[in-house]
Amino acid sequence: MEGLIMDYPLTTTTILEYGNSAFKHKKIISHLPNGNRHEYTFGQLYKRCKQLANVLTNKLGITKGDMVGTFAWNHHQHVELYYGIPGIGAICHTINIRLSSQQTEFIINHSEDKVIFVDASLVPLLEKIADKLETVEQYIIMNAPENFSTSLFNIFHYEDLLERQLEEFEWPTLNENDACGMCYTSGTTGLPKGVLYTHRSTYLHALTISTPNAANYDSSDIVLLIVPQFHVMAWGYPYLCLISGSNMVLPSSNLQPEAIISILKEEKITKANGVPTIWMGVYEALKKNPPKPKLALKEYLVGGSALPASLIKGMEDDFGIRGVQAWGMTETSPLGTVSRLQSHHRDLSPEEKIKIRAKQGIEFPGIEMRVIGNDGSVADRDGKTMGELQVKGAWVIKSYFKTNNRDNFTDDGWFRTGDVSTVDSDGYMHITDRTKDLIKSGGEWISSVALESALMSHPKVKEAAVIAIPDEKWAERPLAIIVMRVRDEMVSDEDFKEFLSRDFANYQIPDRYVFVEQVPRTSVGKFDKKEIRRLYAKGEL
Amino acid sequence: MEGLIMDYPLTTTTILEYGNSAFKHKKIISHLPNGNRHEYTFGQLYKRCKQLANVLTNKLGITKGDMVGTFAWNHHQHVELYYGIPGIGAICHTINIRLSSQQTEFIINHSEDKVIFVDASLVPLLEKIADKLETVEQYIIMNAPENFSTSLFNIFHYEDLLERQLEEFEWPTLNENDACGMCYTSGTTGLPKGVLYTHRSTYLHALTISTPNAANYDSSDIVLLIVPQFHVMAWGYPYLCLISGSNMVLPSSNLQPEAIISILKEEKITKANGVPTIWMGVYEALKKNPPKPKLALKEYLVGGSALPASLIKGMEDDFGIRGVQAWGMTETSPLGTVSRLQSHHRDLSPEEKIKIRAKQGIEFPGIEMRVIGNDGSVADRDGKTMGELQVKGAWVIKSYFKTNNRDNFTDDGWFRTGDVSTVDSDGYMHITDRTKDLIKSGGEWISSVALESALMSHPKVKEAAVIAIPDEKWAERPLAIIVMRVRDEMVSDEDFKEFLSRDFANYQIPDRYVFVEQVPRTSVGKFDKKEIRRLYAKGEL
Repeated sequence: MEGLIMDYPLTTTTILEYGNSAFKHKKIISHLPNGNRHEYTFGQLYKRCKQLANVLTNKLGITKGDMVGTFAWNHHQHVELYYGIPGIGAICHTINIRLSSQQTEFIINHSEDKVIFVDASLVPLLEKIADKLETVEQYIIMNAPENFSTSLFNIFHYEDLLERQLEEFEWPTLNENDACGMCYTSGTTGLPKGVLYTHRSTYLHALTISTPNAANYDSSDIVLLIVPQFHVMAWGYPYLCLISGSNMVLPSSNLQPEAIISILKEEKITKANGVPTIWMGVYEALKKNPPKPKLALKEYLVGGSALPASLIKGMEDDFGIRGVQAWGMTETSPLGTVSRLQSHHRDLSPEEKIKIRAKQGIEFPGIEMRVIGNDGSVADRDGKTMGELQVKGAWVIKSYFKTNNRDNFTDDGWFRTGDVSTVDSDGYMHITDRTKDLIKSGGEWISSVALESALMSHPKVKEAAVIAIPDEKWAERPLAIIVMRVRDEMVSDEDFKEFLSRDFANYQIPDRYVFVEQVPRTSVGKFDKKEIRRLYAKGEL
Repeated sequence: MEGLIMDYPLTTTTILEYGNSAFKHKKIISHLPNGNRHEYTFGQLYKRCKQLANVLTNKLGITKGDMVGTFAWNHHQHVELYYGIPGIGAICHTINIRLSSQQTEFIINHSEDKVIFVDASLVPLLEKIADKLETVEQYIIMNAPENFSTSLFNIFHYEDLLERQLEEFEWPTLNENDACGMCYTSGTTGLPKGVLYTHRSTYLHALTISTPNAANYDSSDIVLLIVPQFHVMAWGYPYLCLISGSNMVLPSSNLQPEAIISILKEEKITKANGVPTIWMGVYEALKKNPPKPKLALKEYLVGGSALPASLIKGMEDDFGIRGVQAWGMTETSPLGTVSRLQSHHRDLSPEEKIKIRAKQGIEFPGIEMRVIGNDGSVADRDGKTMGELQVKGAWVIKSYFKTNNRDNFTDDGWFRTGDVSTVDSDGYMHITDRTKDLIKSGGEWISSVALESALMSHPKVKEAAVIAIPDEKWAERPLAIIVMRVRDEMVSDEDFKEFLSRDFANYQIPDRYVFVEQVPRTSVGKFDKKEIRRLYAKGEL
């Protein structure tokens, strides 16, 4: 029997309307690339989204189901695009500005973007490929300086378009299963693949992430959105902040540690997100110039790659700032799990507590996870048995955009993450590796992530990446790539081996250690294992 | 264009599975009517729900869409029914044990309950009407003492049934729009009306209520569920606690102030809910015997009727316990709004802060509200313009069960609450009256709720109810019914008038004050205005 409750679709427009009704006076603050600070309220955002909706429909001819690209930093206009484009039933496709020209060209043609909203400072990247873009009819330039010029055809300026439009617009009724946004995977292997989010998945993800066990945002928070808006919808934070009534601060392209610290101070930021690399940089800079008075920052939520235990400990002991490990993928909107201590962990030692916090944690409500062992059955939750992590849930993809990738899904409908993990008896998931990055030595598996994490806890080591290199006797052996904290300082291979022997069996410990000045990274700040392998995998140092 | 996200229905079973996976070790503690304390984990709840599902399908012949009644206090078995019944696709109909025999009979026949799960101590109430119940085939007795006997036919004992069943059960796939629960309005006017909740509405309500701006529950909380499970699904708390991983404490029938205080102490309760009457009693009892050490209780969330400013202030000043005002109705699952201060209220005076906290507050995401003034248009958000509060949203009814009540809905699809309210420029809604309870004197409206609230802030007054009485000259005049804090103490009419003259115009101030020992209340603890009018409305004292 059907229940007798109103049909009330969960859409990005529901969120926008809510922010305007419940938190009209809350603020969105942008630190623009030109150094200007821009501030307005959720109420003003609301009116400008309606102006944008008029631009899209009346001026640009965008209709339901059209793909509209954005190529931009984090700022208020980009937030307007996050609401205005899906608000009229079109799809907000955020294009990663850090990809190669070839990948960018592929993505824009593959998604069939009709219009691209682009920051003036990023226009040169598009100029290089414009003549190869098959579907783009118009470019809308944001934040152009006075002397701006471009070889792009058919351009408009964002602010010019908006100011001529009415602040009234009747939002169409949408189906919550309609697409609202798209993001391509960063493609560390093969071509980038498109993930098409629904209004419903976006709403449920944002609402769930606001809960106390997750990001824990309320109307007293001032949130710095470091995760780029061109990367997995900025982890949904532009939606989350309107739901939770949190002030939102957007740093545009100012992502150097000193710039971030300056914003943390000036805006009295209470919470923030970001990949570990960013926070390692902030930590090093804070160590050099300890802030006085203490920062207002209480907590930073980290995903993308593992939050090193040493960083958790350093930030907390030195500056009283809590690091929270989360896990997710483009394919999971992205957040799937988070690691926070619970009341029954209260009496553990500080070391045991950090071990739990460095795990990827428990799943959010709306997400299910399981680990499938080598024998194809669900692995025991013993904290030891490894296998492939598989997930399903209300914001997990069921397929890629225009791509048949059945290999990524099980026959019973779970998404195969490609991560190798364990789950402990408390339900905490721990990623030990990517399936592709596991090292098989003499028939035994070795986790590259566990080795990296241990090496990065060495006081003299800043970063460490571990890959497999071919070995005649053992098939594969681990090789460690090391960035030292102090340049030219050295640790002998023997010292590393002894250091690792506390936690690893002999056969798991790398025989060789290469010192480099930096580890190659992908466009989203992860270790670029493909590139590292290309440079070192032959074992030639 | 449809997005490419998995189809993942939001159901009570999703919640149960989540509680078992993420918070298996968390606890459900019952203080049973016989004085025993019962404790088990979410993991054990999960297994027993599967046993119950086997009982329902194999033993009792319950199938999808069947109505299953409960007639019980708050305890773990009742929580099992909240999950087990909807888990197999049947509907958990919680019957209010405090209604008259006539109303109870009407409700059971109207809903067509096939089976009723009943606490042994409540069996006498059903025995009286059993021969008039047309659809009930079986009674399942819970918590029976050894010498239990009954005139009911076809009885089973709950524990006997469960212990013979397997802990394995394959949950059927459900549509999230299927009904999962039903509750009848308490019917202060006319016949009770059935509200049929969906799996989706139940999930979204519980998830949203867990957020920091709402009830703010996380896995460190220990929650006392005072709101009866036979009343609007206990405000969704049995679902909420599994989502948030909070320990749940159930007091059964022990709702006297001393019993509640004893549980607050023993279980180290951090948060609780309840109607104001309960908390007024607890406050009086705490004043008599101030607790040492301080209670762990941080916050109590109140709904059902207005939380008096005097109680907010007393509990906070004397015991450091925060009262949070929420608003809702059976028709809204029930929670629709909550009043918490925001950062821009920080510099207000204590009195101004309490004035805001005594409002019903801002709507939850998923709920929309508007006030329709006398002229039929949406009232200004000026904190003054009154009108009927109308709501819509993801957990608001679209119609009553088997009842055509189009009067309760507007043509454009909003639910008419029957509450008279204002909304201020910050978006805070304030209920000034029920439409039925407004007093019209000499053509001007007078709010009975505002007068009651002011009278209850008088130091010598414990409770006050205000109704309209007929008046030859003015058509209606307000009459105040007063319960004094100290019996036989008096305040003169003149003193009351002077006290009220600070906040009210002369014409709004009652001319007459009646002193009584208690104000008649409905089954759910609200002032029973119907009964008060019956007793006093002729103006004969």
